[in-house]
Amino acid sequence: MITMNFLTKISKSEIMARIEKLKAELKVQAITAALITQNVDVFYYTGSMQNGLLYIPVVGEPIFYVKKSVTRASEESSIEVEPLGRIRTLGDRIKAHFGRPAKLGLELDVLPYQLAVRYQQMLDTEIKDVSPLIRLQRSVKSRYEQAQISEAARLVDEVIQLFPSWISTDLTEVELVAKIEHYLRVHGNINLNRMRGYNQELVLGMIASGSAAATPTYFDGPAGGLGLTVASPQGASYKKLAKNEPILLDFSTVVEGYMVDQTRIAVIGSLEDDLTYAYEVSRNILREVEKLGKPGVLWESLYQHALQMVKQAGLQDHFMGFGDDQAKFLGHGVGLEIDELPILANGFKQPLQEDMVIAIEPKFTFPGRGVVGLENTYIVKSDGLESLSISSEEIIIIKD
Amino acid sequence: MITMNFLTKISKSEIMARIEKLKAELKVQAITAALITQNVDVFYYTGSMQNGLLYIPVVGEPIFYVKKSVTRASEESSIEVEPLGRIRTLGDRIKAHFGRPAKLGLELDVLPYQLAVRYQQMLDTEIKDVSPLIRLQRSVKSRYEQAQISEAARLVDEVIQLFPSWISTDLTEVELVAKIEHYLRVHGNINLNRMRGYNQELVLGMIASGSAAATPTYFDGPAGGLGLTVASPQGASYKKLAKNEPILLDFSTVVEGYMVDQTRIAVIGSLEDDLTYAYEVSRNILREVEKLGKPGVLWESLYQHALQMVKQAGLQDHFMGFGDDQAKFLGHGVGLEIDELPILANGFKQPLQEDMVIAIEPKFTFPGRGVVGLENTYIVKSDGLESLSISSEEIIIIKD
Repeated sequence: MITMNFLTKISKSEIMARIEKLKAELKVQAITAALITQNVDVFYYTGSMQNGLLYIPVVGEPIFYVKKSVTRASEESSIEVEPLGRIRTLGDRIKAHFGRPAKLGLELDVLPYQLAVRYQQMLDTEIKDVSPLIRLQRSVKSRYEQAQISEAARLVDEVIQLFPSWISTDLTEVELVAKIEHYLRVHGNINLNRMRGYNQELVLGMIASGSAAATPTYFDGPAGGLGLTVASPQGASYKKLAKNEPILLDFSTVVEGYMVDQTRIAVIGSLEDDLTYAYEVSRNILREVEKLGKPGVLWESLYQHALQMVKQAGLQDHFMGFGDDQAKFLGHGVGLEIDELPILANGFKQPLQEDMVIAIEPKFTFPGRGVVGLENTYIVKSDGLESLSISSEEIIIIKD
Repeated sequence: MITMNFLTKISKSEIMARIEKLKAELKVQAITAALITQNVDVFYYTGSMQNGLLYIPVVGEPIFYVKKSVTRASEESSIEVEPLGRIRTLGDRIKAHFGRPAKLGLELDVLPYQLAVRYQQMLDTEIKDVSPLIRLQRSVKSRYEQAQISEAARLVDEVIQLFPSWISTDLTEVELVAKIEHYLRVHGNINLNRMRGYNQELVLGMIASGSAAATPTYFDGPAGGLGLTVASPQGASYKKLAKNEPILLDFSTVVEGYMVDQTRIAVIGSLEDDLTYAYEVSRNILREVEKLGKPGVLWESLYQHALQMVKQAGLQDHFMGFGDDQAKFLGHGVGLEIDELPILANGFKQPLQEDMVIAIEPKFTFPGRGVVGLENTYIVKSDGLESLSISSEEIIIIKD
């Protein structure tokens, strides 16, 4: 009935290593079991994104209780699948199989209140937020995960090679974004840039130019974008691409669920000197933090170092947005979601770990004129950051 | 600094009518105030989707406390904007301005547990779920909202007119979906098909053919789709379109945030008789429920009537999916989200109201062979359902 043989599965050893690591963390925190509910976390720990609840006890084997589709989850999941059945009886089934958990871990950063209360009552237990430990675990990427992100970077690079033949003053921003989306789609992009943060949404990225790119918006990032409607006020707009203004090419693609995040700048004609200067400061910041970003270094220190360089360059009013709309970070983890750990911002005094994957994006906003900057996705290695982004960082100059 | 004059704003009278209706409902339920947090609800009640919290007291004027972008929210919102400032002091500011709410309404179906607890503590109050009344209010559409959905239907129809020139055995499903997405994108589609349900995701719709369309998946709908990867197991796959099998064209577009939902069937060559028969049963179901669907009729009764027709036709094993993977509904509200009220399913004993907008989608799944059916989006009028979908319902026959 089902022909799924050409959808690549995630290896059982990859999944089992993830489960064992989580179990060890739960044990340290004296949590009896975790009930994993969010689709991305469920995928991470089972290899399947079918609709269901994953119960992971510290002692014993996990069970994936699936609502829909049981047939397909059984094909995809490396974890034992059982039909979820009636939610009213699930609590008793779990208690009969595993015993009542003394302390239950839930993803309280994403799980809606109503459901959290229901699961707590169902298992008659104390609940504890396990999202910090899940997010921290997910921030360190396996070889398999790094390979997916590298492949995403390769696809993004293919698009960047095409920009000189695509970009012209004949196009609006949204016509350019539609070309990018079409290319990536037929090469396997799923058209979902998943974010964990409540209410956060991202559509491909920020493809925007001149004054439209500098328009602030709700998105918690350095660039906004005018967008097409007040119902989605971000990214590409109907504005035409024009000569001698920066075209911000901040976009992603998704390979087997994994994203890269990368930014390049193009211009039809040439940029004014102060914009070119800001672009060069971005590049210098990348070179510096590449050397600094080693295991053990605090997340906030990379932001603070960049901020110091920005102040020395006299660009602090323009850094990561303008005025009241400045974002207060330098970079973020990427993987299955675009807002993963680590967060390179003040107050985050946790150490970098080897194999964390981070998008670093120093950018400068000039109201009415545009946004310039660069972004690469890096892996933390013992001697510094190694770029997974393979595209040239040079400004893409389109002949007028 | 900001050139936003070409983004159409929602009229103040539209927004004020929505606020007044919510206030009246809150009063009936003895709720002192609602704190609206979800981006779509915030947009519905302010006209702006900037990041912030909307406080609506039963007595007094609402305030939209904005985190980012204050500048832009002030342009877009019909509600008074104040900078959100530090979240630690927000509770005291609200209490000083409005008084402590005795009972606070929150959207407990979507608001993460962690945030709900924080807001409850911040305002030192009892909390109550207001999502049912918000969802019910939003299910009844104003003239403005109906016009946006009609415009979305017009755009979808433009694409349907193009299918005969696009569809061929040269294309894979994802190449077809990329063509649709490109066309809709340059005409203003925001590439976000918003859903309210936890973990629910939809990418444009279900463009799938033959056996791939009949593959079950996590999506809580009648059709699944193989998808491109286990990380997004729904919709279009790399399968080539082939002769004599149904091509499911279930898709949406978004105009000013509002969606239509519509399904047509195409075939390269011809369909086998039993599939054509099932398609005709779908059409007969639509004709019947169009007459039945009047104000006062219970939501579940439309589902039950359809189910009776399906049984008479001997197709109950194939209705809305196959076997264990059958979805148990006939239709759903559409608007800013694709999973709005009403829900046409057993157990929903609420009455239809005039100006509700409903997508009705009788479909039949034949494992290994495909999915056939139809879907239109309707408005509830005093004498029955009026279709907002303007495309011909005929099977789109592509010459081999």
